[in-house]
Amino acid sequence: MQALWLENGRLSIRDDLPAPVPTAGEALVRLRLAGICGTDLELVRGYYPYTGIPGHEFVGEIVESSDGTPPGCRVVGEINVSCGECETCRRNLPTHCERRSVLGIRDRHGAFAGYLSLPLRNLHRVPDTVPDEAAVFTEPLAAALQIQRQITITGEHRVLLIGAGRLGQLIAQTLALTGCDLHVSARYPRQKALLLNRGIRVIAENEAPARRYDIVIEATGSPSGFELARRAVRPRGTLVLKSTYRDSANVNLSSLVVDEISLIGSRCGPFEAALNLLEQRTVDPVALIDAEFPLARSVEAFDSAAKSGVIKVLIRP
Amino acid sequence: MQALWLENGRLSIRDDLPAPVPTAGEALVRLRLAGICGTDLELVRGYYPYTGIPGHEFVGEIVESSDGTPPGCRVVGEINVSCGECETCRRNLPTHCERRSVLGIRDRHGAFAGYLSLPLRNLHRVPDTVPDEAAVFTEPLAAALQIQRQITITGEHRVLLIGAGRLGQLIAQTLALTGCDLHVSARYPRQKALLLNRGIRVIAENEAPARRYDIVIEATGSPSGFELARRAVRPRGTLVLKSTYRDSANVNLSSLVVDEISLIGSRCGPFEAALNLLEQRTVDPVALIDAEFPLARSVEAFDSAAKSGVIKVLIRP
Ligand SMILES: [Zn+2]
Ligand SMILES: [Zn+2]
Repeated sequence: MQALWLENGRLSIRDDLPAPVPTAGEALVRLRLAGICGTDLELVRGYYPYTGIPGHEFVGEIVESSDGTPPGCRVVGEINVSCGECETCRRNLPTHCERRSVLGIRDRHGAFAGYLSLPLRNLHRVPDTVPDEAAVFTEPLAAALQIQRQITITGEHRVLLIGAGRLGQLIAQTLALTGCDLHVSARYPRQKALLLNRGIRVIAENEAPARRYDIVIEATGSPSGFELARRAVRPRGTLVLKSTYRDSANVNLSSLVVDEISLIGSRCGPFEAALNLLEQRTVDPVALIDAEFPLARSVEAFDSAAKSGVIKVLIRP
Repeated sequence: MQALWLENGRLSIRDDLPAPVPTAGEALVRLRLAGICGTDLELVRGYYPYTGIPGHEFVGEIVESSDGTPPGCRVVGEINVSCGECETCRRNLPTHCERRSVLGIRDRHGAFAGYLSLPLRNLHRVPDTVPDEAAVFTEPLAAALQIQRQITITGEHRVLLIGAGRLGQLIAQTLALTGCDLHVSARYPRQKALLLNRGIRVIAENEAPARRYDIVIEATGSPSGFELARRAVRPRGTLVLKSTYRDSANVNLSSLVVDEISLIGSRCGPFEAALNLLEQRTVDPVALIDAEFPLARSVEAFDSAAKSGVIKVLIRP
């Protein structure tokens, strides 16, 4: 099959790769549409060691499945493949399994390919009314919703979101649904326009008042974003970290104690809730699409996705 | 009046200081007993700029009060004096008031003196059955209880406390009351003996298993304590920071995101709850007392309190 291949930080298109052979409990899935995410760009930049097929945001269709799911059924998939046996799995934290593989990120070939395989328990059926162009956002939308599984956000909260890129836009849309008093710090004109189109208030970074917000969500993964977040959160407020950072950061732990700040790391989230929002059309990810490339031109797709201010680039087999 | 004086990192006994003159809404309090805490030692080491009378753990008696509290009535006092007017005060976070003074720590003379003054709203009456030697622990005991105002701890939680010094011993005693599965990492023989006497399990630092504990409380204020805490907490676990740190720490923020850790800063706590525990005798702070010095010898008291493994040194006027 054809696939995008990452090795030593270099991407190439290969046509010589065998389709994955599903093991017991897995399904073979034919790709319909995939999305490039910030983690994919970081893999190419060498922030994590990975050799293989990248890609973890996808919608596909079942080719064969041991549980009788009919071929052609459209699915999206959770990216963490847990062992089911370790201490962490037994404590019902499968996304944190110590022996997990992660689709297109760790020890498991990903979605920028004609076919992929995943355990059946990782797959979720896509409602018929949700088009591929929306379903491909299920994984990052679930990650955005994870914030609200970790903390309660209501109309009484002043919330600042820092970063309005790939993940930030989805976070902004889900936060807006809570009725909170939301400000979003956005950098690029297209990011701002997308937010303003949905009636979301945009502020410049230097406009965020210090010690004002009950909840600040940091979605840039940059040290300056973290600094801004730390300044903007009020005493006893909550700072949610929604992006990974390239390096360790110098953190004034004493100030976290004195101001009694809660710092909460947030990662993968609930697929069913994300699919529900897509089915209800209460969020609109399709507006975030900048471009689409065929799989054969996916190296070019990565170049496009890496440009400043670009939000979402898709790859179609 | 006589008082201990701190200036340029040097302590001295002075007999030439005027007794404080309470302003409207304040009471004049005669000292009965005071305790030396880690923050006092840090003030002397110059970690914070402060010139004046140190001391913030005390029990005293009312000399005069504008609200008719009878003279002789024993009181303890909350240490943060808020303005009542700033944004933070209006949001009902008085201990975080931006313009606060703090007894013996910032802009307000403290308790190592014949007399001190505090607003009436800061004072709490000590139940008759609680002796001075227990009441003097109200402030740090309240700080220990603050943890349980911020997170729920039950018999289902595996909890690790790192540090069994002044504050750590009180935290350990309050944690034990929750019925949680508690381990305490203690360094000195006397610290260990005090815990074992109460049936609390003590472990060595290198015995704490990685990624095991639902909740880890860091009460050493040292970088190595933070590192140990970070290693010991499970994915999606909670790490409570209960001590201030001298310097900024290098923190791997990405690992907090990947493991979805909650990091919670914790400071001052509820005095009434602390007085209730003292009245019920469900905690025993008196066992933590190492030595008592008269106020005139309080420089010597500080030398004694700074020795490794010493837990609590008291000062009596
Ligand atoms: Zn596992
Ligand atoms: Zn105030």
